[in-house]
Formats: sequence, C-alpha cells, structure tokens
Amino acid sequence: MEHCKEHVEIPKIYDRSYSEKKKISKSGTPISLPPIGKKSHDSSGKITPFIFKRRENGPNDVTIKILYCGVCHTDLHHVRNDWGITMYPVVPGHEITGVVTKVGSNVKRFEVGERVGAGCLAASCLECEFCRSSQENYCDQIQFVYNGIFWDGSITYGGYSTMLVADHRYVVRVPNNLPMDAAAPLLCAGITVFSPMKDNKMLESPGKRLGIVGLGGLGHVAVKFGKAFGLHVTIISTSASKEAEARQRLGVDDFILSTDPNQMQAARRSLDFILDTVSASHSLGPTLELLKVDGTLVVVGAPDRPMELPSFPLIFGKRTVKGSMTGGMRETQEMMDICGKHNITCDIELVTPDKINEALARLSRNDVRYRFVIDIAGKSSRL
Amino acid sequence: MEHCKEHVEIPKIYDRSYSEKKKISKSGTPISLPPIGKKSHDSSGKITPFIFKRRENGPNDVTIKILYCGVCHTDLHHVRNDWGITMYPVVPGHEITGVVTKVGSNVKRFEVGERVGAGCLAASCLECEFCRSSQENYCDQIQFVYNGIFWDGSITYGGYSTMLVADHRYVVRVPNNLPMDAAAPLLCAGITVFSPMKDNKMLESPGKRLGIVGLGGLGHVAVKFGKAFGLHVTIISTSASKEAEARQRLGVDDFILSTDPNQMQAARRSLDFILDTVSASHSLGPTLELLKVDGTLVVVGAPDRPMELPSFPLIFGKRTVKGSMTGGMRETQEMMDICGKHNITCDIELVTPDKINEALARLSRNDVRYRFVIDIAGKSSRL
Repeated sequence: MEHCKEHVEIPKIYDRSYSEKKKISKSGTPISLPPIGKKSHDSSGKITPFIFKRRENGPNDVTIKILYCGVCHTDLHHVRNDWGITMYPVVPGHEITGVVTKVGSNVKRFEVGERVGAGCLAASCLECEFCRSSQENYCDQIQFVYNGIFWDGSITYGGYSTMLVADHRYVVRVPNNLPMDAAAPLLCAGITVFSPMKDNKMLESPGKRLGIVGLGGLGHVAVKFGKAFGLHVTIISTSASKEAEARQRLGVDDFILSTDPNQMQAARRSLDFILDTVSASHSLGPTLELLKVDGTLVVVGAPDRPMELPSFPLIFGKRTVKGSMTGGMRETQEMMDICGKHNITCDIELVTPDKINEALARLSRNDVRYRFVIDIAGKSSRL
Repeated sequence: MEHCKEHVEIPKIYDRSYSEKKKISKSGTPISLPPIGKKSHDSSGKITPFIFKRRENGPNDVTIKILYCGVCHTDLHHVRNDWGITMYPVVPGHEITGVVTKVGSNVKRFEVGERVGAGCLAASCLECEFCRSSQENYCDQIQFVYNGIFWDGSITYGGYSTMLVADHRYVVRVPNNLPMDAAAPLLCAGITVFSPMKDNKMLESPGKRLGIVGLGGLGHVAVKFGKAFGLHVTIISTSASKEAEARQRLGVDDFILSTDPNQMQAARRSLDFILDTVSASHSLGPTLELLKVDGTLVVVGAPDRPMELPSFPLIFGKRTVKGSMTGGMRETQEMMDICGKHNITCDIELVTPDKINEALARLSRNDVRYRFVIDIAGKSSRL
C-alpha cells in the first residue's frame, strides 16, 4: 500500500494537466460500466458532465451504486477554488448514500445490497494514534473523498457521480428506518455538528444551553441533536425571517437576532456552548460575549479568510474557541445509529442532476432549506 | 457596602473633570499623610507627580506601605489609552509589594509589619459563583486596582504611589525567602501565566511540551514555572538575539525563530500547550500549527486590535484557543507559596521613581530584561 506523503492543508498540485495525467496513469483497470459524473473544470463554478474511470474494487473495497448526494458548502468552495487547493477537474460530493454492489475479499462488514453511506474521508495513514483510535479525521495524511490523493496516487472524485469505490473503513451503514435522500447530508453536515457536541459532552448534559450560529445545513441538524438530547437551543442569526420557522417548526427555545445590539446585550454570559456554522469570515467577538465564563465556541465552518478574534471577550470570560472537522469513522457510525434511534434526518430539497448548477447558485445565496440533495439515480431507484 | 453596577469592559467615564470630581467627593476622610503618586494625565504617556487621598482604612481593609511596584505592559496601554478606557488622571501599577501598616477590625489574616502583595484586583461582587469559588477575576463586576471604580464610587489608583488601602480579600502574603523587589511582578506577570498553566493541568504533567510565545515579562516567568514542574519548554520568538540567553541562562529546551518558515514547519504538531504572551495584534495561525491535535493555546496578552484566527489550522487540528486573565485570589496565594518553595522570582531592572517615563519608553520598545520594578520607597527601605 502506497501512502501519500503530502499534507492536505498544503496545496498539492496546481498544474491541471499534470493532475489529470497522474490520475489516468495511476488509476486501476477500467471497470465495465464507467461512472458518469458531474465535474467542474475551472473556477467559473459551472458543473458539466464527465465520464471517468474508478479503480477496480480491491480486496478492502466496496463498490457503491450512488443513489443520493448532498450539496455541501464545501463543494461550492472547491468548485470556485475559494481555498486555492482545487485540482480540476473536480467531482464534488461527500454526502453519499447508496447500495453496495460489490465487496472485496477482505471485507466482512458489508454485503451486496446493503444500504450504506460515505462521507468526507477516502484515506488516512492507518498507523498513527488518530487512525488507531478511529479519529481518522485528524490523521496528518488524511485524504478526502474528492480533491484528495488516494493511496494509489489517483485524484479522488466524489459523489456527484453514479458509483463509488471506497475502502470499507470509510463506509458506514444507514439505519433501515431512515430515508436515503434525507439521510445523505448526515454524512457531512450531521457528523460535523455531532462530533463536537459529543466531544464537549453536550449529548450528556440535558438542560445545558446550546447556541447555534447560522441556521443552514449544519445548523438545522444541530438543532435536532440538541432537542433530542434535552438541550436548551438558541439560534443566533442575522436573518430575522428565520425566527418563526426556527421556533415553530424546528422547536428552538430562543432566537437571537445578532444584528440587534439589545438582544445581544441581553443574552450576555447566557450560553454554555456555541456551534458556529458560518462559512463566511466574521468576528467571533460578539458571539463570544454570549458565552458564560469558561464556555466553549466550536468553529465548524471554514471561512476562507481569517476570522477576527478580539482578545477582551476571550480573556475576560476565560472562553474557549475550538476547531472541529467532521468526525472519525467510529463516531460517524454511532451518529448514524443515533439518528436511526431518534429519527433524525435532514430537511432537504431534492434536485435532479441537471439542476446542480442552479442548486449551487442558490446555495451561494444561502437560499436553501436546508440542504440540496441530488437524486443521482432517479426517483425510480429510491430505496 | 455599595457595589458598582457597571462592567469593566465598557468604558465608564470619559469626562476627565467628572472623574476627578467624583473621586474627591466620594473618597474617604483624608488620611494624615497623603500618598504621593505618579500619574499620567493624558494620552501623551508622560507620568508626573500627583498628590491624592486614599480612603480611610475600613474594617475589612489593610493599609500597605508600598515598597516596590512592577511596570506591566498593561500600564503602558492605560497611560496611552490604547484600549480607550482610561479615566485620567490614572495612577498605574498592579504589581505591588509592601508592608502592612494598619489592619481593619474584621481582618484576621494579616498583622502590622507583614510582607504582602497586591495585584490587579480591587473589588468584585462577592456574591456570584466566581467570587464564592475565589475566581474573583471572572466576576462580572470586577474592578481593578487602578482605573476601576471601587465600592464607594471612587476611582482606584494603583501602585505607582507610596501607600495603598486595599480590602484584605485582594491581598496575599509574600513568602519570607523571596526578595520584595523581584517578587513584585509575580502579582500580575506571575499569576497571569501560572493560572492557565494550572487550569490546563500543565503543573501536573511533567514531560509535556510547553511553548511560550514571547520572552518578556510574562514569558520568562512561564519558563521558570515550566522548568520547576518538569515541562519541556520551547520559546517561540521573533528575536533571534534572545536564543542564547534563553537556552543558557533560563535553561529552555528549545527555541523556534517564528520568522523562519523552516523552523516553524519542522516543529509542526509538536507542542501540547502554548502560552501566547504577545501584547501586539498578530495572527494565531502559524503558532496553532505548532500544536498537536487537540492542543491548547492560551492567550494571555491583550492586543488592542483583534487577532487573526484562520479556520484551517483550528479545525484540521481540533485545536483550542483559550483566554485567561490574571487569577483568583486563592490561586494567587497558592502561586506565591509555590514561588517561595521553588525560589521563583522575576528577573528585574530596578528603577527609581524619577525614571518611570524612561522605563515606559524602553518597555514600549520591548527593551527590558525582563521587568522594570520601581523602587518606590528608596533602597534604604528594602526588606
């Protein structure tokens, strides 16, 4: 097994022709039915059809017929090359659900026909302390399900496509009671908010006061986890228009309009824990003031420009700002099982593959409630 | 007892004549020997002599003949009004050592003649959970030893003066084996680094890797605590000139020149805990990369402009940025006792009161090793 020596935080290959060449020369034997995907070829942000090869199903792999794929804000960042790390052509998509069509000889965990999901991770070193403790997401050699470099040197292509070959370690089961379309965004949006909530003991602290900055794809799932585990949930948002729905349909306990200084002042030192899901650059100062002394704010958005961190709200309240990125595979499965138990799925708008560009354009305006999911296989194929 | 209703983070009184008038009308009966202090009257930053009254020693007070007072970077911020909260005239100084000359009728902890210290705190609400657990420094109604508003409504004046009247709760004993001049900066610089080290279990984790950003007044004391508790200590500095002294005299284990990308890259993911003592605004990104996954950086400087916090080093390493401000009174006494046990004091340059302006000018250029201390009472009075 060949491990990638490079680190994901450092842009790896900017030369487009080189990356394509590398992919073709190192990818496995062509499979009989080449996957038809949707790719973006440059930072114009337009997605076009693309036929490409995936590797042959290896002994540790499962092949998945993709049914649904969620549209994450990260996809938009990659399509537009906001982070300067996109290797075009890029096939986005890391909120994947589907059925297993092939299993490798070493794979005991899955059977053909099983309902599964694949998320952000495609590979990690398998040897470091984080891989050994199933915190693969913090492995220094992590590679993502798209725009990553797999062990064989090939560029990874994501879920905006008809099939996926994945190492079984990075695949989870989808509980039978969850619809496959509304479950798809759990693979990124879900685990991204679940992991820091669990890590910071919010899932064992009923009555604690949870704040969620931003009521979008991530925020609305965080509300569901918060309510399922007995937390007092407050939405902090710049959009007054979201208050009614947040309170009435999602059942949040409180709503703070962050542009209103009076509301912000009234809520000073009131929250135990805040999830900041905003993907645009912003100052953390006003939000930090909402935390109690020793409270924690976890950043799960990934703004492309640095956030502003004023020292006074940080030091006067002994407050904590923490980062969190998706989750490990063991906790991803745990999250899926908890979602099955509590019937937690995402609120989605289902779109056909020909509407991806429209969906991305609306997503860039935050015009979605709360996640677009691409109906990859067509409605007749739904499980 | 009258409590201040306002909060220290919000500028209270900008009108100079009002603040002076308030001080005079609300201060206690004049004492027989008015203290002679050193004040700054405006943001020009010049300190001039100033005669003023302190309150009569009340039943809970001790009166302290001040022997020494350290010169903290915070003094400079206040003199120049960098934070926009200075109430002129301001008498700086919150690293005070001296001897008790009077004790109130309710005070059992101190006797006349006792060697004591006073730090940043002058008052707090005494009722909240933080006051009750001796974390007075996080009380929402905290008032500082200078530029604060005491319970009686008077503006507080600090240690650049000949005597202090302090509520006994905010006074600690200085161990007999510590020289009073070199012990003075422990009251702010010392507790400021001790508190987060203790809070984050660095004093019970020998072998852990501690990074210290900035080798100044705070940084050099942190080195001493780190070495006393068996940590592996790394200085991260922009000044190559500090390396020899750091290694040879202070005994640090490693030195990273933060302007050298190769040194920074080589030290990626190597540190467990970082104290960032820098008081100028800066990006936390490069420093965060030095932390292991799940590592913690504590900000103890107080830059007047927001720091830059890039999301990627934060989320990819699940790293924590935390604030910490001085310490509670119980842990301040604990720190003094530990300093007595380990013979920890500060490396100082002693200056006479007529050299304060010169000292502040040099401090603003970071030209001090490592703390100026004002010899308030003259050398003949040293204990």
